[in-house]
Amino acid sequence: MLYHVRMDVRVPHDLDPARFEALKVAEKARAEALQREGTWRHLWRIAGEYANVSIFDVPNHDALHAILSTLPLFPFMAITVTPLARHPSAIG
Amino acid sequence: MLYHVRMDVRVPHDLDPARFEALKVAEKARAEALQREGTWRHLWRIAGEYANVSIFDVPNHDALHAILSTLPLFPFMAITVTPLARHPSAIG
Amino acid sequence: MLYHVRMDVRVPHDLDPARFEALKVAEKARAEALQREGTWRHLWRIAGEYANVSIFDVPNHDALHAILSTLPLFPFMAITVTPLARHPSAIG
Amino acid sequence: MLYHVRMDVRVPHDLDPARFEALKVAEKARAEALQREGTWRHLWRIAGEYANVSIFDVPNHDALHAILSTLPLFPFMAITVTPLARHPSAIG
Amino acid sequence: MLYHVRMDVRVPHDLDPARFEALKVAEKARAEALQREGTWRHLWRIAGEYANVSIFDVPNHDALHAILSTLPLFPFMAITVTPLARHPSAIG
Amino acid sequence: MLYHVRMDVRVPHDLDPARFEALKVAEKARAEALQREGTWRHLWRIAGEYANVSIFDVPNHDALHAILSTLPLFPFMAITVTPLARHPSAIG
Amino acid sequence: MLYHVRMDVRVPHDLDPARFEALKVAEKARAEALQREGTWRHLWRIAGEYANVSIFDVPNHDALHAILSTLPLFPFMAITVTPLARHPSAIG
Amino acid sequence: MLYHVRMDVRVPHDLDPARFEALKVAEKARAEALQREGTWRHLWRIAGEYANVSIFDVPNHDALHAILSTLPLFPFMAITVTPLARHPSAIG
Amino acid sequence: MLYHVRMDVRVPHDLDPARFEALKVAEKARAEALQREGTWRHLWRIAGEYANVSIFDVPNHDALHAILSTLPLFPFMAITVTPLARHPSAIG
Amino acid sequence: MLYHVRMDVRVPHDLDPARFEALKVAEKARAEALQREGTWRHLWRIAGEYANVSIFDVPNHDALHAILSTLPLFPFMAITVTPLARHPSAIG
Repeated sequence: MLYHVRMDVRVPHDLDPARFEALKVAEKARAEALQREGTWRHLWRIAGEYANVSIFDVPNHDALHAILSTLPLFPFMAITVTPLARHPSAIG
Repeated sequence: MLYHVRMDVRVPHDLDPARFEALKVAEKARAEALQREGTWRHLWRIAGEYANVSIFDVPNHDALHAILSTLPLFPFMAITVTPLARHPSAIG
Repeated sequence: MLYHVRMDVRVPHDLDPARFEALKVAEKARAEALQREGTWRHLWRIAGEYANVSIFDVPNHDALHAILSTLPLFPFMAITVTPLARHPSAIG
Repeated sequence: MLYHVRMDVRVPHDLDPARFEALKVAEKARAEALQREGTWRHLWRIAGEYANVSIFDVPNHDALHAILSTLPLFPFMAITVTPLARHPSAIG
Repeated sequence: MLYHVRMDVRVPHDLDPARFEALKVAEKARAEALQREGTWRHLWRIAGEYANVSIFDVPNHDALHAILSTLPLFPFMAITVTPLARHPSAIG
Repeated sequence: MLYHVRMDVRVPHDLDPARFEALKVAEKARAEALQREGTWRHLWRIAGEYANVSIFDVPNHDALHAILSTLPLFPFMAITVTPLARHPSAIG
Repeated sequence: MLYHVRMDVRVPHDLDPARFEALKVAEKARAEALQREGTWRHLWRIAGEYANVSIFDVPNHDALHAILSTLPLFPFMAITVTPLARHPSAIG
Repeated sequence: MLYHVRMDVRVPHDLDPARFEALKVAEKARAEALQREGTWRHLWRIAGEYANVSIFDVPNHDALHAILSTLPLFPFMAITVTPLARHPSAIG
Repeated sequence: MLYHVRMDVRVPHDLDPARFEALKVAEKARAEALQREGTWRHLWRIAGEYANVSIFDVPNHDALHAILSTLPLFPFMAITVTPLARHPSAIG
Repeated sequence: MLYHVRMDVRVPHDLDPARFEALKVAEKARAEALQREGTWRHLWRIAGEYANVSIFDVPNHDALHAILSTLPLFPFMAITVTPLARHPSAIG
């Protein structure tokens, strides 16, 4: 089941730089692993913003929340979730 | 080049039903043709709304506008376009 | 799987009264049937507004959209859907 | 009498982690106690967000405010309350 | 129990003037009757707008909705309800 | 002359607790004094929020501003003022 | 006493042109008369919009509402009123 | 002096098509004439929307308003004006 | 040429009080000087808010920006500028 | 290909002044270099705000994001990007 997710990263300017770098490295590793297993189906950068648009494919809401809420940058992200249904004009 | 497009259809209640049906048939045909040629890469229904989220792959802004502004339902849609860049953590 | 749905009914003042009455009767019948079968789990009126808050229990996004988009008053409603996950502090 | 309550938790990044953990433990205990006594009728996590949708059943506005304003995480939550009336199409 | 209610009247310009006048007369009569019985405790005009701020004193949400939804101008009003609790610094 | 005033208190989490307690005590004393002299005509808590709705009765805008801007919690409040006129359907 | 008033004129496209012209002529006459008597102290056009910013000098809220609500274009205007107090740094 | 202007065209669906076509032809002619004389310095289409971003170079606010308010499509446009100053890092 | 300017002052609670007092004294001196020379034509306090509405009379956008951006409190203000044109119904 | 970019600079009041000055110097150098090479086509200050409106001419979204996300002030800017297409009434 597909979910459209937008994540906006908001970094407090007084966050410890080393801690933030570690979080970004962990976030990247997690994002890549979830893409490899087919859960994080698409991941795009919104041009000009520290934000992304993503498509997740997970069995249910609980699975989605478990993934999003454990992302290393979760405490610094504003997230909005939109459930996607099949469009009657979609092909293939 | 990828563009994230959200389209919200707003149908005036006093629109002639036959005209509206004809527009919807034409819209569906156009959407399917654009998907077949690879331009309209993804088309999802937003659950519960008369709206979609789409991903277009076109060479430039002019090409995108030419497509969107000639969709049969264009006069009845609120459209927002977001340019998508490659995300540093995207794989494949 | 649970979805939180808010529906705001917006009736154009020049809608034919007989047609609107028929739509409301059909809407009520449909709402009651969906409640009886356990799909429409909760239905509350927002005090002072022509709007409701509802909880739906359906297998997936497609099922939800199929229900909402065929409600008799769908063309006159603004709908927002929020997917609900299990809360770690919820009991029972 | 039913109230629809949405709570969004906003944790300042420089809040003392030990203090925050203690608040979360106390919040969970309070939420479970209020559910057991039937006051906090429903508690759902909004998928992807540090937020919940809840239904409270209390005798009046003062009782609701007394409960919400003494939740351990109250100083870190944005709360919106919506009074719910019986819907004419609700069954049972 | 007190409720803060804001009502904004929105009159379509092509509404039949005689019908609108009749609605206003009926609304005024209803407002005066509800004030006399103590239900509609305060009624103020927002300066410069076709809108009012009101305080209602009713036993519960259902009673409030029954009153508001049967006001003659209800179909032409945007209404927002805010439940009021006792303030710890209020006297008397 | 009546003014509708909404005050939302926003307390920075790193404000010195002793200073904040002192401000609250002073605020309460000032609110009670202004109510006793008839200036602060109504003071209600918005259920579930650290906010109030108030009605002030003062001779003019300068008097209102003098009162509001010297409230002990003024630096921590977002305030909106709405001038209230007599409603043609108000009785008494 | 001074009030800051913003008026946005919204003309339905199917309003009878002759009626609208008559309303504009009457509005202009009324605006000029109120300026001459010193009530409508300033009247500026917002560049590029069918809207104005005005300063009124009237004894109280009721007087302001009486003026605004009887402007010929009142039914076609969105109006917001802001009470102005003396600024401590204002001279003269 | 430069002004940034955004224009969003909103066409009522029941506007007479012949009238609308005539307005568009007149608008195009006016836009081209103003560009030729150097007043309308830039004119860009916002991709996917019936809207434009423009830069005007006129001596003052009155000249800008005179131009914008007499555009043939003015009654069907929402316009926002932003005054542009020289940027300290701009070259040339 | 006239500009309508709204300034909202936002003071961080942990700003050094002595520094803030010095800024306010400097701001007041600057505001009075600009009023005396006729540049800052009107300066009003918005009742109940730490904000003002002002009218500036300057030759062009650059002059306006030079003034506003060097106000002592500029780093702590949210400012919105609206260019004012002559209104066709304004007299005098 | 043209992009309309708005940048709002938001400087935390407790940012180290020397660091901020260094960032501004670097930002200015980068802006001037990008203007010289023709990438940053226009750069205007929004009068009264610490913000700019810019037009970029770059081959694609990735190039735009690479430029914007490496601006020295990027961590302190809110940026919105709007893709610009050719307008049918644009000349030259």
